[in-house]
Amino acid sequence: MSSQSSHPLAGANSVETANFIKLVDELLSVDEASNAVASSQAGGTSIFVGTTRDNFNGKTVVSLEYEAYDAMALKEMEAVCKRARDKWPQIIKLAIFHRKGLVPIGEASVITAASAAHRREAIDACHFLIDELKATVPIWKKELYEDGSTWKENKEFRHARAKP
Amino acid sequence: MSSQSSHPLAGANSVETANFIKLVDELLSVDEASNAVASSQAGGTSIFVGTTRDNFNGKTVVSLEYEAYDAMALKEMEAVCKRARDKWPQIIKLAIFHRKGLVPIGEASVITAASAAHRREAIDACHFLIDELKATVPIWKKELYEDGSTWKENKEFRHARAKP
Repeated sequence: MSSQSSHPLAGANSVETANFIKLVDELLSVDEASNAVASSQAGGTSIFVGTTRDNFNGKTVVSLEYEAYDAMALKEMEAVCKRARDKWPQIIKLAIFHRKGLVPIGEASVITAASAAHRREAIDACHFLIDELKATVPIWKKELYEDGSTWKENKEFRHARAKP
Repeated sequence: MSSQSSHPLAGANSVETANFIKLVDELLSVDEASNAVASSQAGGTSIFVGTTRDNFNGKTVVSLEYEAYDAMALKEMEAVCKRARDKWPQIIKLAIFHRKGLVPIGEASVITAASAAHRREAIDACHFLIDELKATVPIWKKELYEDGSTWKENKEFRHARAKP
């Protein structure tokens, strides 16, 4: 599932702004995220890629699995983009790609990206997107260890008590 | 020209660390930078892409051109990586790619990337790489405007007086 929307950029109506949001069961592409936020008016693009790593708290990780309420997650992803634009009106384009299902070691579970005329806003906005995504978007993570499997609540989630 | 070196990661000798540094006359690839810093031990990768934008101080930019003293620039790029590792020993891999010659609108002139187990170090290190690169690496920029052309000193360069 994916969605895209356009927003006027305050005070610079010749700049084409957009948010690219995806929540999909397939491999995420860093190049696709980079191209999504590309703009001839951008001087800086910042990209964050979250990948499954092979260990957690000293235990060997086999894989991660993500589950989401698609409609609610996509709505929250849009809301995160909106808050980023409220904080940095200079943002040109934003992207949040999240993968669902099994994500093998080394593959991306999430990509956030932001472009702006100057690098400071691009970097700060990209960082904000990943922090807010973890804190507010209802996507649940199951960590599979070599010695069995445990559900792991996203520990950064602000409303962890609301988890089903 | 490119160089690669390996460094032991303090306190975690099973982690393979490396710096990937390039200063080249060809198109830079975000995917290549992302792959360069990939690691099964990385949970977070941060990438910054600096691109030529179509305007500067209200003037229409035709293109940018970069010139460098290769040997000195590569040495300084290595030094920037070393300083990043001194600040964040948790860094796994680093990449700094810089383009020379003409860089058309929308194309990347520079890419920095950093991977680490946790996102905070990856994001901070990637940000540090681009800030320090601009401040300390002797790469000169010529901005070509529609109305003529002007050499432009990199205004962030700390030792601007040493420019030839």
